[in-house]
Amino acid sequence: MTQFEHGIDRTLPDDGARPGEAVSVHLQALLRLFGASTGNGRVLNELERTIAGDPVGYFNSPAFGGDMKEALETAFSSACLPELPVSIDEHVQHLQDKVFSRATPTASPRFVGHMTSALPSYLLPLAKIMTALNQNPVKLETSNAFTPLERQVLGMLHQLVFGCSEDFYRQSLQSGEHVLGAFCAGGTTANITALWASRNNLMPADQGFAGVAREGLASGLKHYGYDGLALLVSERGHYSLKKAADILGIGQDHLIAVPTDGAGRIRIGALQSCVERLRLGNIKPLALIGIAGTTETGAIDNLDAMADVAGQAGCHFHVDAAWGGASLMSDRQRPLFKGIERADSVVIDAHKQLYVPMGAGLVFFKRPMLATAISQHANYIVRKGSKDLGRHTLEGSRSAMAMLLYANLHILGRRGYEQLIDHGVDNARYFAELIKQQDDFELLSEPQLCLLTYRHVPSVIMQALRKADGAQWVALQDGLDALNEDIQERQRDAGRSFVSRTRLTPDVSGGRSICVLRVVLANPLTTPSILKDILHEQRALALDSRCLAPLLALLTPPAQSSAPVRG
Amino acid sequence: MTQFEHGIDRTLPDDGARPGEAVSVHLQALLRLFGASTGNGRVLNELERTIAGDPVGYFNSPAFGGDMKEALETAFSSACLPELPVSIDEHVQHLQDKVFSRATPTASPRFVGHMTSALPSYLLPLAKIMTALNQNPVKLETSNAFTPLERQVLGMLHQLVFGCSEDFYRQSLQSGEHVLGAFCAGGTTANITALWASRNNLMPADQGFAGVAREGLASGLKHYGYDGLALLVSERGHYSLKKAADILGIGQDHLIAVPTDGAGRIRIGALQSCVERLRLGNIKPLALIGIAGTTETGAIDNLDAMADVAGQAGCHFHVDAAWGGASLMSDRQRPLFKGIERADSVVIDAHKQLYVPMGAGLVFFKRPMLATAISQHANYIVRKGSKDLGRHTLEGSRSAMAMLLYANLHILGRRGYEQLIDHGVDNARYFAELIKQQDDFELLSEPQLCLLTYRHVPSVIMQALRKADGAQWVALQDGLDALNEDIQERQRDAGRSFVSRTRLTPDVSGGRSICVLRVVLANPLTTPSILKDILHEQRALALDSRCLAPLLALLTPPAQSSAPVRG
Repeated sequence: MTQFEHGIDRTLPDDGARPGEAVSVHLQALLRLFGASTGNGRVLNELERTIAGDPVGYFNSPAFGGDMKEALETAFSSACLPELPVSIDEHVQHLQDKVFSRATPTASPRFVGHMTSALPSYLLPLAKIMTALNQNPVKLETSNAFTPLERQVLGMLHQLVFGCSEDFYRQSLQSGEHVLGAFCAGGTTANITALWASRNNLMPADQGFAGVAREGLASGLKHYGYDGLALLVSERGHYSLKKAADILGIGQDHLIAVPTDGAGRIRIGALQSCVERLRLGNIKPLALIGIAGTTETGAIDNLDAMADVAGQAGCHFHVDAAWGGASLMSDRQRPLFKGIERADSVVIDAHKQLYVPMGAGLVFFKRPMLATAISQHANYIVRKGSKDLGRHTLEGSRSAMAMLLYANLHILGRRGYEQLIDHGVDNARYFAELIKQQDDFELLSEPQLCLLTYRHVPSVIMQALRKADGAQWVALQDGLDALNEDIQERQRDAGRSFVSRTRLTPDVSGGRSICVLRVVLANPLTTPSILKDILHEQRALALDSRCLAPLLALLTPPAQSSAPVRG
Repeated sequence: MTQFEHGIDRTLPDDGARPGEAVSVHLQALLRLFGASTGNGRVLNELERTIAGDPVGYFNSPAFGGDMKEALETAFSSACLPELPVSIDEHVQHLQDKVFSRATPTASPRFVGHMTSALPSYLLPLAKIMTALNQNPVKLETSNAFTPLERQVLGMLHQLVFGCSEDFYRQSLQSGEHVLGAFCAGGTTANITALWASRNNLMPADQGFAGVAREGLASGLKHYGYDGLALLVSERGHYSLKKAADILGIGQDHLIAVPTDGAGRIRIGALQSCVERLRLGNIKPLALIGIAGTTETGAIDNLDAMADVAGQAGCHFHVDAAWGGASLMSDRQRPLFKGIERADSVVIDAHKQLYVPMGAGLVFFKRPMLATAISQHANYIVRKGSKDLGRHTLEGSRSAMAMLLYANLHILGRRGYEQLIDHGVDNARYFAELIKQQDDFELLSEPQLCLLTYRHVPSVIMQALRKADGAQWVALQDGLDALNEDIQERQRDAGRSFVSRTRLTPDVSGGRSICVLRVVLANPLTTPSILKDILHEQRALALDSRCLAPLLALLTPPAQSSAPVRG
């Protein structure tokens, strides 16, 4: 006990003071900011209640909408670092005026242009608690219970995808040597992680070769005698795959875009031909990538047939289900994904229809040893043999988002998810029927899951299109592109509702790329009445669009159209 | 107006119902979860107040600490997806019992093993609001005001690092064609982004070559006539750089570990020799990487001298300031970073001493055109010419974390940050003095910024080490390694305080790698009294360590040491 007591120099000052000087008044004020939240002020407390208490209500309130006439960038035009502090009240009022009130109302049931949604309200206080606990699941040491929790969440969804045996999960779920998957910042890093593992797995250490991870890609190709690598995916693959091909050193030109059928699914015959052509050129297909579903129309590839082709080609089969994977929760939708359980790796975005906030992409590996190809370690972290999750992730430090998904899995349950997913699909079918019943809207892709595309075609133009010859037909299509682009932009700017747009080549356009309106019905609060409103508003926007007159002018005979037009 | 009114089929049901059927009671209950937060329940409301209202208080309360005897993994051992929902109250109670109460107290001022800290308390409600707004800054369309806000934050910190002219920022800050930097999930993706840009920039499109991004790494090397690429960094570089070398196809073996001096800084002479050796082998140095500071001791490389070497070698100069970059806020610390303004790219982690929650790494590019080498686009998103931030980021969808940093920059101000940074350095210097005054602790690295390393050496062993010969000396060092490892693990498991450990080769160990205790004083709430306590506790843990007796036994003559030892 003497040794325990002695040795501390008692001349050094105690608590809260630097040697030889008292903590300054300024520093004391700063330190209080890091303590209990009692000093956060009225403005912040009120805004927290208003916005986080009811986000959808906030988007409909007079407080939302800010000064939209002021250019968005005006408030953010200086690169000068603020030198002196401002009060919490003052800054939060500024945030409300210039930032929150001018946010995109992603949670609004009228915002149906992307896969955004209102979130379960209990997630907001849980997200606040998550921030307060500020865990870092890169290692057990900075995340404690959050590490086994994250493993469990990965295991539950691994089972949803692959349905392996109880015994399999008993051995692998909490084992440091088995990796069922990884939490990533989003679908892009999840896709990169999967393809990184597949690349390293294709060219492992070998007689006289330390493996592609250590020796690099050029040496790997040389050692294994390949003239190059390729990734095969339908022409509707997400642009993140181009990033992956670029980052991993494969090259975007070696991401082969395989043609799709009328429903936007990869043509299996074309895929086989591609594989064969690559074989003749001594290009190794690194992976076949199935899409479930595409960002633009929600199409799901024939995964079972792709698994066959991958098996024949002896290559990795990856499924990018970032967009649609959550629909596996529904027994009604699940058959669309047949064959996904044969994939080597699968990506699902949790921040889409698993209804957690932005920043959660998931990758799953069917065989728990695949990810050892990308394992890392260091002395101060993720030591060999540890259960640290950071041993097998692309990212290092990251947030404990798994907890929010864990809460959803329990509070919604699989059945709750199933109802939400089916509800979105039902909404999309309803909207498709509604569009078909109009004589001035054209459905361009049938709903696949909760997504569909369409466009506005004034009924006179609809009739004219049926009879139009080559040049006239092209001119009409151009005019429709301009009109729909204008409708979409003005609807967005009006801020009441939002649909997105993209360019597609549906059957009706004869191989021509046209502008389409795109609707994703992931928000369970979207109602038929809102969908009707959206068509109403688009029709009204068309009527006073500057693009309408030039389009209608195409219908009048050329002789007259050269005459000056008045009021 | 007729066209506006007609066309909607009024036989379809309205609000909240599917065609032909009423919304089920179950679905109605589910939908209520996505509405206002009134139904979140008592347990969640209370826990939100307790934990997020005062995280440090929570870690000191009886509610924290959970059932630590139960193995952590027990509660998370099933891979079965919950089929039926549970109530919010029930699940949140489970979260408190098994997850929150068994978190790592990263915000505690006694948790000084990693760069974690309490956060400013106003960030917690702001994080909740951020989650409620759920913006996605991948594109303007899903983030509106958050996009120019993020650009401004990047610009402010770009100016902190590079100090370019007002005119420069006027042109580039809000321009879609200029990229000052990017928000990433963390330092790892930020480092990868920087090196990805540098790789693509080294091998751009050229006569008969479409660029490495499109044609891949092997073609790039061939076209430019390099036998390989290399990254040069001190042997103390962060393990994320190994991941970068692996992912980018360069190979971990081509991440050249350059020797360091006694203070842990890269040896400039050795760096020059490496560059020369690579040149003779026709290996192109892709980038020289300066560290500011190292994860293990906080050492900052001589960045000015490295910039000279990079200039001579004609290669990219990257600075990994993930750990130390926030210290640029302090005029007192800034001189340590001299030369950082000459870097081509710099990484700073905002979730370290910029005091935002986990999940924010930043990369900055000195020349705003560098990132065009990694630009992407797609029809449905990040269209060419747009101001969408996702055009130039590794990640796609991600959270709007920039807003939290924006709030800190204003509410703390540069001067507030400066005081916090200096406070951490002062704390570290105080602790170093305290350690030096003990006869049973050995300081192993002087504080560089707010980090230092040391170990416990019982005073009799301290004396014996001075006289020990070869075998005895090695045995004593082994015994000290075991003792310090045991102290660190038991202190961690006791849960009162936490320091980390790593292995280093400080001057005193004669080139031998030894176990050291590592302390990072980033939490401004840590006081001298806490630091004294930590040494007290370590001394007590040493006294009853199972590793103490074997160590002391080394001091007794061999004849006696073979005799049986009794209580």
